[in-house]
Amino acid sequence: EEAESWLPSLQTQTPEEGFQLALTLARKGVTETQGDPEVLHGERPKYSQDAESLIAASQVVATHFQTIAAANDYWRD
Amino acid sequence: EEAESWLPSLQTQTPEEGFQLALTLARKGVTETQGDPEVLHGERPKYSQDAESLIAASQVVATHFQTIAAANDYWRD
Amino acid sequence: EEAESWLPSLQTQTPEEGFQLALTLARKGVTETQGDPEVLHGERPKYSQDAESLIAASQVVATHFQTIAAANDYWRD
Amino acid sequence: EEAESWLPSLQTQTPEEGFQLALTLARKGVTETQGDPEVLHGERPKYSQDAESLIAASQVVATHFQTIAAANDYWRD
Amino acid sequence: EEAESWLPSLQTQTPEEGFQLALTLARKGVTETQGDPEVLHGERPKYSQDAESLIAASQVVATHFQTIAAANDYWRD
Amino acid sequence: EEAESWLPSLQTQTPEEGFQLALTLARKGVTETQGDPEVLHGERPKYSQDAESLIAASQVVATHFQTIAAANDYWRD
Repeated sequence: EEAESWLPSLQTQTPEEGFQLALTLARKGVTETQGDPEVLHGERPKYSQDAESLIAASQVVATHFQTIAAANDYWRD
Repeated sequence: EEAESWLPSLQTQTPEEGFQLALTLARKGVTETQGDPEVLHGERPKYSQDAESLIAASQVVATHFQTIAAANDYWRD
Repeated sequence: EEAESWLPSLQTQTPEEGFQLALTLARKGVTETQGDPEVLHGERPKYSQDAESLIAASQVVATHFQTIAAANDYWRD
Repeated sequence: EEAESWLPSLQTQTPEEGFQLALTLARKGVTETQGDPEVLHGERPKYSQDAESLIAASQVVATHFQTIAAANDYWRD
Repeated sequence: EEAESWLPSLQTQTPEEGFQLALTLARKGVTETQGDPEVLHGERPKYSQDAESLIAASQVVATHFQTIAAANDYWRD
Repeated sequence: EEAESWLPSLQTQTPEEGFQLALTLARKGVTETQGDPEVLHGERPKYSQDAESLIAASQVVATHFQTIAAANDYWRD
């Protein structure tokens, strides 16, 4: 098995873990597009202190969370 | 069990509670990206008094509400 | 029962009522984020006369309408 | 029955009619937010000649079309 | 039967054809809003050389592709 | 069979491969709209170093990933 996969499964124990996974996927969508950590580091102050960007980031998390929640059948016991 | 989970479940009694949970998830998507309360506090006047940002925030809530409504089978009695 | 809930149910008689409910939810997403009517009133001329904001508002309504249509099984007789 | 409903049903005969209905719903999302035809008329040149607004409008149509396609079971014969 | 419908069906043989159909629907959402080819032609250089507009256009295609993929049961053989 | 299809199927072995496919579809949505590699090359520095564009790109990936995850029944073993 080559390098351990960073995304072995969409299954999580709890909704909270599912939300964390959604954050990971949202960030991955950025780092896969821009691989250079220096550029990302340079951009952090701009987006992380800009309301519009923070809301846009939350929108990406919301879309991924919708996918993960469905994948886990909404963690219905 | 470590600290009480902030998101134990997606189930809510009523659509109104579901809408409140959607608001919580939308805000969480921001605070998880920008943890510094001072920055968030600084940004509040800007986004909360800007029509475009308020509409964008409402869009995030709409996506989360869609997830929560499905999780609760649309609160069909 | 405390104050009458503003969102007792997602069920509506007709698609048209469903569209009205979607408008209500879209607006609620704004007023729950910015509670101060004066600020909202101040922002109205800006967003309500700006094509981009009007389209963005229509997008929020479209997402909520999608949720409500599913909740009502698309009002199939 | 009061005034004829502008949205009696989501059912259409063909995908093309479904797309037209999606356009109607997208426009309705704007006119329900801004009822003043003069304002809308004033805004038309701006949004209808601006690439970004046209793309944003197409996004609203895409979300409504998704809803209507599901409502018609994707017009599978 | 009046003029041949431009959208007789959502069914396609392959995912690739489905992606092409999504592109068609995304463009149709623009041309149905702005019918004047001269305006569209004038706007082309602007949006087609602007990263943000190209990403926004890709977002519209993604929403339509989601609809078409579901309509074709994800082309599961 | 003419040229090998670039999108033979939506099925992937793992969620990680599914995420890569989502990236491919997101990029394809851009290259199908703007075919000229020189233009795309010219735009790369702008969008790949701009937080807002990177977040918008991540949003497109999230929508495609939602489609592919559903196509693979969320890779439930």
